[in-house]
Amino acid sequence: MFNVQPIGRLRTPWATTSDCPRNGRRADPPPLCHVELDPAYIDGLHSIEGYTHLILLYWLDRATKPEMIFTPPRDTEPRGVFATRTPRRPNPIGLSVVKFEAIERPGVLAVRYLDCVDGTPLIDIKPYLPTTDSEPEASMGFQRR
Amino acid sequence: MFNVQPIGRLRTPWATTSDCPRNGRRADPPPLCHVELDPAYIDGLHSIEGYTHLILLYWLDRATKPEMIFTPPRDTEPRGVFATRTPRRPNPIGLSVVKFEAIERPGVLAVRYLDCVDGTPLIDIKPYLPTTDSEPEASMGFQRR
Repeated sequence: MFNVQPIGRLRTPWATTSDCPRNGRRADPPPLCHVELDPAYIDGLHSIEGYTHLILLYWLDRATKPEMIFTPPRDTEPRGVFATRTPRRPNPIGLSVVKFEAIERPGVLAVRYLDCVDGTPLIDIKPYLPTTDSEPEASMGFQRR
Repeated sequence: MFNVQPIGRLRTPWATTSDCPRNGRRADPPPLCHVELDPAYIDGLHSIEGYTHLILLYWLDRATKPEMIFTPPRDTEPRGVFATRTPRRPNPIGLSVVKFEAIERPGVLAVRYLDCVDGTPLIDIKPYLPTTDSEPEASMGFQRR
């Protein structure tokens, strides 16, 4: 077992999981969301300004118990948890590639493309690097684009 | 605090952190690595075969204590931890986008592009979805391509 310590929280327009969009990019424009970093970690943002995109990891604290195989919404067949992005995972860690708009004030980042509940605990911020993170030709597997 | 439970381990050619390449894509061809999933989670791989790329999350258990600001190797200026992919993070979670080659046998996936130490604890497998994960035009920030 390893311990994860929240480093801040995510501020979004969605109060409950049923309010959340399926995908934070589909609205036009995608709503502005905020990353609020706890004071102890603010120095870690130094030099982040030049990136256009970030990867956020967060703890899906509303997720219910994982099931290894389940039938996703809008699907007709059972799928394995690792073939989906469901929050009901063995370790309920969410991942979003977000557009980084600005540092609004110390420790507060404005971003777009989140789709999680307001108040979700943040556990990491990474720079998005197209050289290692972008695979535009990747297959969607059984999912439709 | 949240608890992370390892779900398997990563098998790579690198025994120590100093053996690891800076980037698992630079070798030609990038070496074959393996994901070994613990038996309890094998059913979660159902329907994963159609994806060409996966996102692996793992616990960087050899990482030393994080520093909020440090000067990275091959850099001349101090940078914030969240502007880099250093393992020395508040929560030492590593992320790699990998090429998914095959399920070699039940619970064992062959992949390429890893750059971590042999035996690193695995904490999640997610399908890579180009619709939400690929940003080929993203900026590299202060880093050179």
